[in-house]
Amino acid sequence: MAKDLVIGIDIGGQTSKCGIVDARGTVLAQTVIRSDNHTTVEPFIAELAEALNHIIAEAGAEGRIRGIGVGAPNGNYYTGTIECAPNLAWAHDKVEFAKLLSEQMNGIPVSLTNDANAAAVGEMTYGAARGMKNFIMITLGTGVGSGIVIDGNVVYGHDGFAGELGHTTAVRHNGRQCNCGKTGCLEAYCSAIGVARTAREWLEMSDEPSELRSLDKITSKDVYEAAKDGDKLALKVFEFTGRILGEKFADFIAFSAPEAIVLFGGLARAKEFLTEPIVKAMNENVLSLWRNKVKLVYSQLKESDAAILGASALAWEL
Amino acid sequence: MAKDLVIGIDIGGQTSKCGIVDARGTVLAQTVIRSDNHTTVEPFIAELAEALNHIIAEAGAEGRIRGIGVGAPNGNYYTGTIECAPNLAWAHDKVEFAKLLSEQMNGIPVSLTNDANAAAVGEMTYGAARGMKNFIMITLGTGVGSGIVIDGNVVYGHDGFAGELGHTTAVRHNGRQCNCGKTGCLEAYCSAIGVARTAREWLEMSDEPSELRSLDKITSKDVYEAAKDGDKLALKVFEFTGRILGEKFADFIAFSAPEAIVLFGGLARAKEFLTEPIVKAMNENVLSLWRNKVKLVYSQLKESDAAILGASALAWEL
Repeated sequence: MAKDLVIGIDIGGQTSKCGIVDARGTVLAQTVIRSDNHTTVEPFIAELAEALNHIIAEAGAEGRIRGIGVGAPNGNYYTGTIECAPNLAWAHDKVEFAKLLSEQMNGIPVSLTNDANAAAVGEMTYGAARGMKNFIMITLGTGVGSGIVIDGNVVYGHDGFAGELGHTTAVRHNGRQCNCGKTGCLEAYCSAIGVARTAREWLEMSDEPSELRSLDKITSKDVYEAAKDGDKLALKVFEFTGRILGEKFADFIAFSAPEAIVLFGGLARAKEFLTEPIVKAMNENVLSLWRNKVKLVYSQLKESDAAILGASALAWEL
Repeated sequence: MAKDLVIGIDIGGQTSKCGIVDARGTVLAQTVIRSDNHTTVEPFIAELAEALNHIIAEAGAEGRIRGIGVGAPNGNYYTGTIECAPNLAWAHDKVEFAKLLSEQMNGIPVSLTNDANAAAVGEMTYGAARGMKNFIMITLGTGVGSGIVIDGNVVYGHDGFAGELGHTTAVRHNGRQCNCGKTGCLEAYCSAIGVARTAREWLEMSDEPSELRSLDKITSKDVYEAAKDGDKLALKVFEFTGRILGEKFADFIAFSAPEAIVLFGGLARAKEFLTEPIVKAMNENVLSLWRNKVKLVYSQLKESDAAILGASALAWEL
């Protein structure tokens, strides 16, 4: 039987999304499992393989899977490993993810990269970055990830780990503790978790009225809903978040002079509150030659699709 | 007659170095002219052309020049223009440098890039970065420049201006005014001018004894000489400078995961005072996966040679 299908897997801090994709980029079947139920890699891989076999059966795809592409935090394209991923309890050390998954899937070849790199490939092939040769994809999810495309190619660097812009320093002195062990990282401020934390800190620090005060546990989604209701504190949280993003984007522009910064992920849904402060801070902090020239665009793909499609694109090359 | 030679030109804020180079990378003749004697481009080009014709005659190279490669601040590889170069009075706007020089040189073709990009090519071909596919060249001169090499290619970006790391933000709040119009740029602290300024500011702010107090006008070279004499204030200036460099290098590493950072330029001669604070700050600010893994190396080429050779390498491609 022709090996005419691939599988794309997007591993996030909370959930992992899997899909069977055909050559046209149609997702034929998909499923989601938790990423955070295990502290070692083997039971996670076992659960993942079971989920994959389920959608393979559902799509009538037995014997037709050419390869599996995986996007994962700290995923290494060169070695197929996931290393020191702060948001994945089963990958705090180094795990041979591609090898283990391939073994569990009867030898189907597995290729792996950074989740944000996978999303960048998806966006370049099917989304907002179609036709662009130079752009930076920033994923605003549980963490802040990045996929950098230069001259049409994803940047992997000397060791395969390039593009960790979420762990560049946004606040130099007395910065927040980040999951990665450092302080002041962009991710500690501008991820979904960072936004919720900003809101909680500001509520504690002031008596400013806010509908968020009535909530037990505040998430970034709560802050977004409050901002939509016109809640001033919530609006200020997004202004603060957008300013930090824009300041750092200006530094990224000085590095690779991209045509656009592409925003992707759950938090990017708050674009009506983020765009203005991002663009303002970005333009205030770039050299004049880039002022008002670098586009800020938002992903045009359904969040799950972009990552699955991007990861699946890797598998076609196997 | 065979067109078997090229010319490399390195345009700096103060001087421009020119050399005739053969296919083996030997500099057959060279000369230096001031870059800062003119406020418009035409008389500078006329003076440059005269200097070039002089060394062409000296080397017996009439009719043998295949092309001219130029490295210049804010030089654009795609368009052959120099745009908004803060340290060049005759290029505050946009000048058609490659076209004008070619016209003055009887139609010899001219290729142009960022001076730091040219130096990076020189270092990759002849110097400390031989065999490296992924490195970042940082030039510490009148300004702070950068040439980024990924997978063996210089990064030019969407518009040809990639690699302006000297104008990423080192100090976010109340940063020093930079020549580029922004505040807090790396260049405002870690260029030769920045080092001299740090020393002057600290002398003003404190009563700490220092041999620098006896000088009328302090240059970075004075600070270096004082540090060599064991002057505590001068040593602290280099520690401060090195720490800022290391902090920013950590961010650059997160971008492109280079094998090495290569330091070049007049200020890099102070390596005995810069290395320790740079390496310490770099390792404190990178993700653990890069800690103690990215090399810090110093240019192995004579300063003038690297830039001339790098620029000349462009000319061979013409």
